[in-house]
Amino acid sequence: MSKINKIAVLTSGGDAPGMNPCIRAVVRTGIFHGLQVVGVKQGYQGLINNNMYDMNERSVSNILHLGGTILKTARCMEFKEESGLEKAYQNLKNRGIEGLIVIGGDGTFTGAERFSRIYDIPVIGIPGTIDNDLYGSDFTLGFDTATNTVVEALDKIRDTADAHDRLFFIEVMGRDSGCIALRAGVAGGAEAILLPEKETAIDELIENLKSGSNKKTSSIVIVAEGDKNGGAYDIAKKVKEHVPSYDVKVTILGHLQRGGSPSSFDRVLGSRLGYAAVNALLNGETRKMVGLKGNTIQLAELEEAISTHEFKLEPDLLDMVDILAI
Amino acid sequence: MSKINKIAVLTSGGDAPGMNPCIRAVVRTGIFHGLQVVGVKQGYQGLINNNMYDMNERSVSNILHLGGTILKTARCMEFKEESGLEKAYQNLKNRGIEGLIVIGGDGTFTGAERFSRIYDIPVIGIPGTIDNDLYGSDFTLGFDTATNTVVEALDKIRDTADAHDRLFFIEVMGRDSGCIALRAGVAGGAEAILLPEKETAIDELIENLKSGSNKKTSSIVIVAEGDKNGGAYDIAKKVKEHVPSYDVKVTILGHLQRGGSPSSFDRVLGSRLGYAAVNALLNGETRKMVGLKGNTIQLAELEEAISTHEFKLEPDLLDMVDILAI
Amino acid sequence: MSKINKIAVLTSGGDAPGMNPCIRAVVRTGIFHGLQVVGVKQGYQGLINNNMYDMNERSVSNILHLGGTILKTARCMEFKEESGLEKAYQNLKNRGIEGLIVIGGDGTFTGAERFSRIYDIPVIGIPGTIDNDLYGSDFTLGFDTATNTVVEALDKIRDTADAHDRLFFIEVMGRDSGCIALRAGVAGGAEAILLPEKETAIDELIENLKSGSNKKTSSIVIVAEGDKNGGAYDIAKKVKEHVPSYDVKVTILGHLQRGGSPSSFDRVLGSRLGYAAVNALLNGETRKMVGLKGNTIQLAELEEAISTHEFKLEPDLLDMVDILAI
Amino acid sequence: MSKINKIAVLTSGGDAPGMNPCIRAVVRTGIFHGLQVVGVKQGYQGLINNNMYDMNERSVSNILHLGGTILKTARCMEFKEESGLEKAYQNLKNRGIEGLIVIGGDGTFTGAERFSRIYDIPVIGIPGTIDNDLYGSDFTLGFDTATNTVVEALDKIRDTADAHDRLFFIEVMGRDSGCIALRAGVAGGAEAILLPEKETAIDELIENLKSGSNKKTSSIVIVAEGDKNGGAYDIAKKVKEHVPSYDVKVTILGHLQRGGSPSSFDRVLGSRLGYAAVNALLNGETRKMVGLKGNTIQLAELEEAISTHEFKLEPDLLDMVDILAI
Repeated sequence: MSKINKIAVLTSGGDAPGMNPCIRAVVRTGIFHGLQVVGVKQGYQGLINNNMYDMNERSVSNILHLGGTILKTARCMEFKEESGLEKAYQNLKNRGIEGLIVIGGDGTFTGAERFSRIYDIPVIGIPGTIDNDLYGSDFTLGFDTATNTVVEALDKIRDTADAHDRLFFIEVMGRDSGCIALRAGVAGGAEAILLPEKETAIDELIENLKSGSNKKTSSIVIVAEGDKNGGAYDIAKKVKEHVPSYDVKVTILGHLQRGGSPSSFDRVLGSRLGYAAVNALLNGETRKMVGLKGNTIQLAELEEAISTHEFKLEPDLLDMVDILAI
Repeated sequence: MSKINKIAVLTSGGDAPGMNPCIRAVVRTGIFHGLQVVGVKQGYQGLINNNMYDMNERSVSNILHLGGTILKTARCMEFKEESGLEKAYQNLKNRGIEGLIVIGGDGTFTGAERFSRIYDIPVIGIPGTIDNDLYGSDFTLGFDTATNTVVEALDKIRDTADAHDRLFFIEVMGRDSGCIALRAGVAGGAEAILLPEKETAIDELIENLKSGSNKKTSSIVIVAEGDKNGGAYDIAKKVKEHVPSYDVKVTILGHLQRGGSPSSFDRVLGSRLGYAAVNALLNGETRKMVGLKGNTIQLAELEEAISTHEFKLEPDLLDMVDILAI
Repeated sequence: MSKINKIAVLTSGGDAPGMNPCIRAVVRTGIFHGLQVVGVKQGYQGLINNNMYDMNERSVSNILHLGGTILKTARCMEFKEESGLEKAYQNLKNRGIEGLIVIGGDGTFTGAERFSRIYDIPVIGIPGTIDNDLYGSDFTLGFDTATNTVVEALDKIRDTADAHDRLFFIEVMGRDSGCIALRAGVAGGAEAILLPEKETAIDELIENLKSGSNKKTSSIVIVAEGDKNGGAYDIAKKVKEHVPSYDVKVTILGHLQRGGSPSSFDRVLGSRLGYAAVNALLNGETRKMVGLKGNTIQLAELEEAISTHEFKLEPDLLDMVDILAI
Repeated sequence: MSKINKIAVLTSGGDAPGMNPCIRAVVRTGIFHGLQVVGVKQGYQGLINNNMYDMNERSVSNILHLGGTILKTARCMEFKEESGLEKAYQNLKNRGIEGLIVIGGDGTFTGAERFSRIYDIPVIGIPGTIDNDLYGSDFTLGFDTATNTVVEALDKIRDTADAHDRLFFIEVMGRDSGCIALRAGVAGGAEAILLPEKETAIDELIENLKSGSNKKTSSIVIVAEGDKNGGAYDIAKKVKEHVPSYDVKVTILGHLQRGGSPSSFDRVLGSRLGYAAVNALLNGETRKMVGLKGNTIQLAELEEAISTHEFKLEPDLLDMVDILAI
């Protein structure tokens, strides 16, 4: 066990369900081990602006079931500049903070990695993003909840699609990753899924929809926001041009995918990752990411998590899309 | 009690949660009273195309909790023409159908009213639309579920709005009616609600948002789809021009508002309305709408339901929007 | 408008979803009208123990979607004694509180009525109980959410009942009222509903279940907790004795019926009632209950609300139980 | 690829959410590979009674979101006897069925294993049980949904516990396994969790609750149904004897834990397992279980799955129970 006495925790980048259970675990695990825990507001902006407060075990009461993040989050340009890093370091030093836990995605980790190298402050990263686009963790915090949210929306839209014999194009989040699109599409019974990781020719899509339409009365096509064919509106327009008889509708699910009470999976994952991150700092680790591999929490190099591109789409799921939607 | 022996039921116009419980009540109440009940597929199109089938008590098993409509629905141009009405009548006559129950909105009722006058076939209308825009029923079937769906979406978006200190514009359904917008806005704690029934000057909205922003870190503005200022994107753009510092996001909730498992309220309402509609036919009524007034089911003239414009926004709810969002 | 400057608000008796939106409306409407608003913790106990705090508009931020009550609630024996009333009065007087809003059920109202008569302090009651057992309001705060919770549980249990061809007895809350049982039973498609307001002979129930079992493979019987035949376990045992071949299971839904995020209906109702209660105090009213009649908020005498027994089960719902479950 | 032309699928034992997506995947993957697929009703009872039907791709339309199992399930004593196995075999042979997929738990697998050895019919097992008590699969089908259901119930009960400062004992399912109790307890913020795998002295529990009660106003204790201290009522009674001042309530969650629309996780898992099971049969495998290890589907010996006892409680989760509930 290291001699660390005081640590800080922040959330940065897009918010994700499960961040609050994770903050709770960091705070209470820290206090259990005799640490003082400081909460930083609005991510790196709070480090720079000295927007922090001392937390105790009651600071994180009744937050386990809440979406969003009680520490708030922001994207911070200033932390990319040396002057910003310097201010952040001075604020941490003045408060006697000897370790930092950052919850976020690759942008967050990139900043943390650099900051830690320059100022030699121990940093542990926790993968918190609905996109599931990080190497070193099978699943990121928030992905399960976001996928459930999308599936619930698909179930609702399916009611209307069936009632009206319609073709729906649904655009879902995920940036350059098709993880949400693929899982939610399989779980929601989508007739087709357009993914950034895989080219789909529009005419092939149209052929599939036509062949299916003999047997099926309604269809749902999932479009990942990072897909190369353009957004759901563009694709719908092209399809409509080729098959004017279709009754085509488009829904961009949008920001409701980021919020909501975290699922059991994300609450448990957030708790485990927060607990492990504190233990990692106490064990003298730095510039590591805690992640879920199989059903255990493991450490990975933060640098590797940032720089490695992992193809995270499960091959069997890719295979079964067409098979299960017959 | 009349000598009617056989009735038909159909759903028409946009689907609404609660239609299935309503169909179930029509079928089982009819059978209980010794009637034969015929289900018409795809609304008036099914009347014209003779797309109908005999239903029994098991035809409506396990549908109480399903959104959409097992009878499917469609908008039908042909039923506005005399040839279409004639075909529909011949099909009903050939099958010996002596009464018709139509579940839908004002378009549905307009067709039913005219058809019934010309061919002297008894018709009862059931107000099924999420928009709550019909005179003669305090609430229409589907409105409660749709409002709950919007509120759940607002709760999720609030998580993200709070985490990022953002201003969100959320566009909700309702056509020319602000009922969903008003109720969901109050229930979701919206900072402002733009309604078709009420003019809102954009600069006034901006002033309100500015004054509120001293105390509040995030804001949600609901925009009813029928609002005269244009859709949520247009309004967001104008606001952004005046207050470039805001972090503004837009979500169009779209078709997920139509689907989903009906709420208890809508299942009970659908059951009551279906039960009452069959009883009305048995009592020799025609061209009536069954509706909810207070907590009892009452009959109104179909003609009146179509032609009367009722201002359905509760004055106290309108008053409290600004008061409760301080 | 009266010259009242300071009011207090409390929740008492069993908690009900919608109490938080209601507290929020009381606080913000009060502040809007220039009042100071004091929150009393733990119902009448807090009045007696002087457990109160000044509230501002931010005291009720982010509570609209939360079940339970931020003011907490308790049952308080001491408030039934004169010494308790006296202490409560002194505490109110010392703080300069000139009006009191109490959210709760008939026990709560009985205390408030007596207290107000003795000490001449204006009191307004808000019907907050899941049981829906108060005269003067078609629906009480929390009833809609509780009913939805029961229906969701029934939907889940139906899955298992169907999969196993089982007979389930489900006991639901409501004390002496069958309102939850009746509505949830109709909405959940229960094969039979045992209500406190209506005698059901066990052998008749058994006959019904037997006759239905030819066509149906599973059955759900709702037992209201106030039913005269004993609880669900007792009834299940008797039925099992008569029809040993049945695969019988029992579930007591219990306290999960009290909690959960309030439905849109209860958030809107709570907001309207809280808003109306403050306005009533400002208008010089006292010993009144604000309630929902039809779709408007109306005042009733508190005394009448307590003493009048109203049969609140809708006759058409009672009629249709057997008809719709065929 | 083997020369199998016709396979059968059944669900047996307790139903679990995700069985329907799994059946759908078996049927559609089979049809995709040119197989005929037969659905067996009511588990092994249907094999013995010849209660089966030919399925096509539309037989499994619109079931992805439904809890329970469209094939129904039953516990079958006759399949433990040789005469039962013989009848089952004759029925399969008469229909030309050359492979069998069984979805269920260890009882199901024990029957399948024996049947397959005696009659040399290829059998693949799919782990479908909410209890998560099978060796060879990190998670069983239905476990994620059941855990979410418990967590949602805990969130609701927490509202009431907080409002009243109460101590709740909540009994959850899992038979001899504490998996649901542990995960749901951590996700729901339980103050203590009583597990079958771990002895908890009642006086220790009481000490913990007393020490916590200085800071916390309400507590929730999860009791796994297999816990050695007796059920939740017994434990509550003992605690109440030692600390009469506590306001103690008990809820047995019961059968609602088995039902409900499957989560995204369980729909995806069910789809993957069903897809893999068909492929395993086609690859000539027999007496294997398909299971989830890490994030891939792998085969295990059915015999091993039945006979191996695996301690499935994650050590870090066990450690953090006391730490996170401070």
